Amino acid sequence: MAKENLLLTPGPTCVPPDVLQVMAQPIFHHRTPQYRKLFEKVSTDLKAVFRTAQPVYTFTGSGTLAMEAAVVNFCSPGDEVIVLEAGKFGERWRSIAERYQIKALSLSAPYGSVVPLENLERALKEHPKAKAVYGTLCETSTGTLFDVEAIARLIRKTEAIFVVDAISGLVADRLEMDLWGIDVVVCGSQKGLMLPPGLSFLAVSQKAWKLVPSAKCPRFYTSLQQADAALKQSDTAFTPALTLVLGLKLVLDKLLKEGLEHVWQRTEGLARKTRSSIQKRGLTLFSQHPSNAVTAVNVPPGIDGKKLVSIMRDEKGVTIAGGQGEMTGKIFRIAHFGFVSEADIEKGIEMLTETLEELKTNSVSRAGS
Amino acid sequence: MAKENLLLTPGPTCVPPDVLQVMAQPIFHHRTPQYRKLFEKVSTDLKAVFRTAQPVYTFTGSGTLAMEAAVVNFCSPGDEVIVLEAGKFGERWRSIAERYQIKALSLSAPYGSVVPLENLERALKEHPKAKAVYGTLCETSTGTLFDVEAIARLIRKTEAIFVVDAISGLVADRLEMDLWGIDVVVCGSQKGLMLPPGLSFLAVSQKAWKLVPSAKCPRFYTSLQQADAALKQSDTAFTPALTLVLGLKLVLDKLLKEGLEHVWQRTEGLARKTRSSIQKRGLTLFSQHPSNAVTAVNVPPGIDGKKLVSIMRDEKGVTIAGGQGEMTGKIFRIAHFGFVSEADIEKGIEMLTETLEELKTNSVSRAGS
Repeated sequence: MAKENLLLTPGPTCVPPDVLQVMAQPIFHHRTPQYRKLFEKVSTDLKAVFRTAQPVYTFTGSGTLAMEAAVVNFCSPGDEVIVLEAGKFGERWRSIAERYQIKALSLSAPYGSVVPLENLERALKEHPKAKAVYGTLCETSTGTLFDVEAIARLIRKTEAIFVVDAISGLVADRLEMDLWGIDVVVCGSQKGLMLPPGLSFLAVSQKAWKLVPSAKCPRFYTSLQQADAALKQSDTAFTPALTLVLGLKLVLDKLLKEGLEHVWQRTEGLARKTRSSIQKRGLTLFSQHPSNAVTAVNVPPGIDGKKLVSIMRDEKGVTIAGGQGEMTGKIFRIAHFGFVSEADIEKGIEMLTETLEELKTNSVSRAGS
Repeated sequence: MAKENLLLTPGPTCVPPDVLQVMAQPIFHHRTPQYRKLFEKVSTDLKAVFRTAQPVYTFTGSGTLAMEAAVVNFCSPGDEVIVLEAGKFGERWRSIAERYQIKALSLSAPYGSVVPLENLERALKEHPKAKAVYGTLCETSTGTLFDVEAIARLIRKTEAIFVVDAISGLVADRLEMDLWGIDVVVCGSQKGLMLPPGLSFLAVSQKAWKLVPSAKCPRFYTSLQQADAALKQSDTAFTPALTLVLGLKLVLDKLLKEGLEHVWQRTEGLARKTRSSIQKRGLTLFSQHPSNAVTAVNVPPGIDGKKLVSIMRDEKGVTIAGGQGEMTGKIFRIAHFGFVSEADIEKGIEMLTETLEELKTNSVSRAGS
């Protein structure tokens, strides 16, 4: 069935109609056995999606709230941390850390690429007291996948914990939290989990938990101690966005029924299809290590990237994402994860082709006038 | 029309069916003119409900997140603040302040009563450097209304700002932010605003804004500077819970169409009706200053308060609230605000009467056996 409003954006992604409907049922109270049963179920199923036996905490808030939680619960002012930066969201780790007087050592790489492993290896040797390494699975701003498995291999030999922003990457790109030895995984609801925005998640290893009691950054709403005490009662410390939790149950049912391996393969197939269609049309990819969540495409010379996005959205019914920050106008981004089909991708590419043609014709006719 | 699942709880409250349906429409992207138009409209309409010309900031998170925002954006570690405490939510202000090394001077009063004005007047004189006074409109845990108009009159003569937790009170109990000279008003979505939980709000006066640049408590997700920069572009700093924002538009339309004066009067009528029905049945009220949002009732001798709540919920289809913390088993609470009718209240009281009879009979038969 064709989607009324096709979102090919790296969050929010389209929400399945039955999930929207389950969230529209009459509201009930969250301090009840009914809710605790629901929350216990989703908290268990989340572990399967995060590929961990460790607890996964649910917060009401956007992904950035959970990123902040992943800083303040493990660090103290004055601590040293290492940040892997090659885009807007890597940079956000540093911004949050600095806000709390944490010394953030940036290992940066050009947008579209990843931080070389040897740089991290050297930094870990030079900074043996680094409390944590903050990285990203899929850097949404550039559509770039970091090899978090290889990164984790370096970090797990040290005292540092490895914290991964998997907000847009989880479910789209393979991530094996326990198997690879990742300590903290952050996610949001409006990406691979196919929900509206409003929930965010934090999975926490035992190595990471050891840092919590001595972490001196102040926190209340994001306190893991409070979240943990509540989770032990199948509850949240503060009123949850409960319609989203209802939707989450159904989404997790769907993902686990299909099987994560299959979801990853299917998403990889959609990503390949998108990239090859893009390249067949003479367009070039921005990222050197493309993620299965989102493909960043260089805006062709002579084309107004912002106009491309707005025409597709307002006239063709397909929302793609432009570039963010310094990438504005230079790239556009097509997401291919979550509730999206081959037909959706085909429609997206068709509308892209049509729009590029129109923009080229206009630019030629303007040049010739 | 009878409600399938009648919630007479002080949040979440019942959500109107058309609001549930509007939130179930296909999702769209928030970094678009379509969203900015929506968000501009709700941000304007929120001012009318908060009775202010000042900006109202929307956060994705529960009410407690906005409470934390109302501490960290105005205070620095080491600052002195005054907290008005006569219940669980007054106490929460102190807990948050202390987490940030702020010296919280508690002015406490027994549960069910309010802090005498002369105590506040004295404290303000004795602590001229107090940066803020933290109070509550309706103390949800006891169903008690604070006279925030009179409190504001004392505070506005001083340098301190007055911050009011109106999470459950707003829309139910009259609050005139600008007219009464209140500096900061905090609210949540799942109370008088008749939405599911997930959004919270902060209205901020110019006097309060003057404290923001020098407030040294660390903050990222709750930063008012970031929220303000975004609001000036009719946007939020971080991805909003956009289905709830869609619902918010419709709810605000409803409230403003009815007129706040009328909503307040109607709610007061429901509160009076509830209280008189309760008293006619020989039950006694817990609060000395009852709020129009929620009525706290003493559990009669010989009755198991927790059982009362669970039987009403599981067998009669009416959810009321028990007591929280030290009030557990001692009171129960019936809310009468938001999307609730006279018929709903009647049904609630009827089911309460029935349940009390059953519990009495059982307790008599047990006593006689």
